[in-house]
Amino acid sequence: MPDGFLAALFETGFLTPGGAPGIYGRGAAHERAVAGLTRIIERHGAPDHAEIMRFPPILAGDDFRRSGYFQNFGPLAGTIHCFCGDAEDHRAAVRLHDENEDFSIHQRAAGLVLTPAACYPVYGALAARKNLPAAGTIIDAASWCFRREPSSDPARQQMFRMHERVFAGAEDAAEAFRATWIDRAKKIAALLELPHEIVVANDPFFGLTGRLMARSQRAQALKYELQVPLTDPATPTACASFNLHLTKMSAAWGITLADGEPAFTACAGFGLDRLALAIFRHHGADPAGWPAALARAA
Amino acid sequence: MPDGFLAALFETGFLTPGGAPGIYGRGAAHERAVAGLTRIIERHGAPDHAEIMRFPPILAGDDFRRSGYFQNFGPLAGTIHCFCGDAEDHRAAVRLHDENEDFSIHQRAAGLVLTPAACYPVYGALAARKNLPAAGTIIDAASWCFRREPSSDPARQQMFRMHERVFAGAEDAAEAFRATWIDRAKKIAALLELPHEIVVANDPFFGLTGRLMARSQRAQALKYELQVPLTDPATPTACASFNLHLTKMSAAWGITLADGEPAFTACAGFGLDRLALAIFRHHGADPAGWPAALARAA
Repeated sequence: MPDGFLAALFETGFLTPGGAPGIYGRGAAHERAVAGLTRIIERHGAPDHAEIMRFPPILAGDDFRRSGYFQNFGPLAGTIHCFCGDAEDHRAAVRLHDENEDFSIHQRAAGLVLTPAACYPVYGALAARKNLPAAGTIIDAASWCFRREPSSDPARQQMFRMHERVFAGAEDAAEAFRATWIDRAKKIAALLELPHEIVVANDPFFGLTGRLMARSQRAQALKYELQVPLTDPATPTACASFNLHLTKMSAAWGITLADGEPAFTACAGFGLDRLALAIFRHHGADPAGWPAALARAA
Repeated sequence: MPDGFLAALFETGFLTPGGAPGIYGRGAAHERAVAGLTRIIERHGAPDHAEIMRFPPILAGDDFRRSGYFQNFGPLAGTIHCFCGDAEDHRAAVRLHDENEDFSIHQRAAGLVLTPAACYPVYGALAARKNLPAAGTIIDAASWCFRREPSSDPARQQMFRMHERVFAGAEDAAEAFRATWIDRAKKIAALLELPHEIVVANDPFFGLTGRLMARSQRAQALKYELQVPLTDPATPTACASFNLHLTKMSAAWGITLADGEPAFTACAGFGLDRLALAIFRHHGADPAGWPAALARAA
């Protein structure tokens, strides 16, 4: 099923091969879908009066460290390395490069990591503000995100776009923010005429300790996903997620409210590329066949 | 000058600190400028009937190798590395990570490189088509691009957005494409009310051989830049470039015309983030003070 689906995506030009598994070019129809989806999400989120913040898809090393991503999801992270040698080292590395060998002998960690989720660069900016209102601050973030998961399933790409709303404030306001976005996501999925379900979920935590973390995350219902049948009808694909972080992010970055207490944070993230694939899967590559709400917004 | 300029960008919220030199968050006004600039560039390029192609900001290893970027610009490239060890290796790396040390002991090159220019992933897609028309194929590409140049000058960012048009066809058609875009760029700069100049330029080729390559590139006038005074009035900043590649890219990727001859390629690229900074520098952070053409498009 995934392979036939990928072939159909290539045949219609919705995607173009990109030279490695999970790296694709997007055609005009795909980008119309992404633009329309973005407008529909923004329209539903208009009452948030969110502040727009856009970061490049790389995270400074200190933010990556605070996020705990390497402990929890080590193999999914992409660290960025740069050539740090002299002219002779460069000649040696170029010889390996030209022979199609690993030429990274003089590449050293640059203290930068590919952004794993659009909200990660936002926490440092929130921490810098101090004394946030309990009623809540809402940031609108969007980014290309990286996960090292080479796969022939087009729903599992190594780099993809996430549009997020990030909340910081009092505990009850964080829960209300998440409930509002779950409600909005159901309305958006209905407008897009996509079969869907909201289900409790967990992150793909790494290793033995990770299994315990996943169990605890589920037991506390900290993560919900909007799941849509996509490549495999038996296993629907998460196209959006709605997360409570309690005070985990606040403790890591030092995000505090006006009363000096740590903020509760939450986020609602939409996977734009997965949603575009869901549109292709359920409504085809031609915008003329798309639901009216999307065709109008695209 | 650059430091005062950066401080002004932070004070108005046009940019937000991102935790490392050359990595910044963009505020609402910045993104309005980028959206308006994009629409103006697209409007001027409408007669191209270009085909839209959008790739994530990572390049497959084979495309990177063909590009010759590592030979020519080695220290500017960012290679992507991933954790490839077992649970015990992970514990060792996490210990280093938690002590704020280089934790890359088990990170290995993933065969992916950050995209250095928006056109690079396009050449493979053109090569796959074979028998391109001599009159020319024009692709509209856009991408975040990476250059390892940490700097406190906001005009020199480690990651920034480039909007490009890429041409492949006969030699005279490639030259006409470039001349047309130089003309359009002058019109766009005039609409944006930006002081500007079109000048012959060269790429920052690495090392001793690089100096010869730069001299040859200038002698043949293969590269023109649209330069705008930005951070330092004495040294204007390149905000767009217009390049002839002769058959260099075609030889590297195997891009051929219907008659079997190698295609001549060319590209016209606009630095969207630098142009947004130029708007800030010359017209301020408030869209109310922007030139009418930009305010209407933003």
